[in-house]
Amino acid sequence: MTLSRLSLNQATIKRATVAEAVAACVAAGVPSIGLWREPVAEIGVAKAAALVRDAGLRVSSLCRGGFLTAADPNGIAAALEDNRRAIAEAHDLGADCLVLVVGGLPPGSRDLQGARQRVADRLADLVDDARHAGVRLALEPLHPIYCADRAVISTLGQALELAAPYPPEVVGVVVDTFHSWWDPAVFDDIARAGQQGRIASFQVCDFLVPVPSDVLLARGMMGDGVIDFPPLYAAVEAAGYTGDIEVEIFNADVWAAPFDQVVSTMVERYRRHVLPAP
Amino acid sequence: MTLSRLSLNQATIKRATVAEAVAACVAAGVPSIGLWREPVAEIGVAKAAALVRDAGLRVSSLCRGGFLTAADPNGIAAALEDNRRAIAEAHDLGADCLVLVVGGLPPGSRDLQGARQRVADRLADLVDDARHAGVRLALEPLHPIYCADRAVISTLGQALELAAPYPPEVVGVVVDTFHSWWDPAVFDDIARAGQQGRIASFQVCDFLVPVPSDVLLARGMMGDGVIDFPPLYAAVEAAGYTGDIEVEIFNADVWAAPFDQVVSTMVERYRRHVLPAP
Repeated sequence: MTLSRLSLNQATIKRATVAEAVAACVAAGVPSIGLWREPVAEIGVAKAAALVRDAGLRVSSLCRGGFLTAADPNGIAAALEDNRRAIAEAHDLGADCLVLVVGGLPPGSRDLQGARQRVADRLADLVDDARHAGVRLALEPLHPIYCADRAVISTLGQALELAAPYPPEVVGVVVDTFHSWWDPAVFDDIARAGQQGRIASFQVCDFLVPVPSDVLLARGMMGDGVIDFPPLYAAVEAAGYTGDIEVEIFNADVWAAPFDQVVSTMVERYRRHVLPAP
Repeated sequence: MTLSRLSLNQATIKRATVAEAVAACVAAGVPSIGLWREPVAEIGVAKAAALVRDAGLRVSSLCRGGFLTAADPNGIAAALEDNRRAIAEAHDLGADCLVLVVGGLPPGSRDLQGARQRVADRLADLVDDARHAGVRLALEPLHPIYCADRAVISTLGQALELAAPYPPEVVGVVVDTFHSWWDPAVFDDIARAGQQGRIASFQVCDFLVPVPSDVLLARGMMGDGVIDFPPLYAAVEAAGYTGDIEVEIFNADVWAAPFDQVVSTMVERYRRHVLPAP
């Protein structure tokens, strides 16, 4: 069935509780959900896990860990503690992976190389925790517009280099159309990620033009922007990825709409713009 | 003298006429100017050339040609005609190079690979014109946030690949800190560009965080953003570039300020943030 791999990332209906998001998935025939830690925390991990399990949904990812670029001892300790908590939550929720948004430059810093090095260092600190918990860490490169304040890792190539020292079942990468569509190396790097068995998550959403006044909200429903999804879908398929395909959209209009309407639009756009023609 | 390579890109004082921009350079001891075609057209190329020459300024660049991604015959013909005019203007102004902003996706198109191929095709069409005019074309990769609507070439690496078939004195590349600071390959690609003798222009300006509501105006005076200039300056130096260093800032506050004040701030920030410590 054509929706068999579709997953609703909870951020797409940001105002929804876990219960509401689960209900919206069930109502629309969406078999998988990407959870966020904040709404999960509102009801507790055990209850969230039960809600998802009782509804028969898979958990394609937990968003998010990361923010690993602190340079001071307190900041480093806090980041490690938070990520260890996130790893435990991902385990308890049965999530396929824990998405890591690695963090930007610390306030006042211009040391991009240093921040990138600290991401590698913190990843090394966390890998054993992930392995012991049976949780896969999924490094997410973000669009370069967020390099300074969200993620100093901007390309799939960088994420693959960071992941390289570790087994692919412990450290994978996220392929996200919004973040990587412009990247001249994206097709080569998807193939490389596939060869290494590193694709932990495939996320789809469109890139809006003109860019809205808040660049964080530049994501749109598939079909509303400039991304040509079928070649990216085909590349991820050819790379051997068989996991869920998450729709994650940060967009003020989408957030303002009724949940069921958003999810049914998502389903329709996924069929029309993402899936190959039958 | 420390300002001996500094150039004011005219867009930094966008409201200024050529005469006003020339006067501001002279008053501040800035020996070079990057001209824009629109203000040059207001007084005519001959008069602009005379103004600059009489003031003893160099012309570090002419901005801009490009917008080469049209797919329809009329659009292609119009782009070629406009770029041939720009090449002639660059020759008449004695500009060190003609900066090419290659253009985004045509309206309604999602075919990024096709647009990139058409840039290569149009470049092939224009190279002989540039060679005959003795004008160097300078391919400018823009930040990936502008990939859809301004430039489908996002990295120095892509620009170098496009330039590769042609002699370096005919097709070079622009190193712009704002556009390339995030690029994990930027230092390697600056070195590669230097080895090939391809660096046609070095432009400096800062990347502001948070990104302003209009992403076109996210540039700031050196020191106001997140870019660490000395390593990039050193890399361009080590790559053998001895040309002018242009300051090009698109910023509403900078545009609103008196020209002389902008130029004197530029000089001060260039000394403090860009030049190596004496």
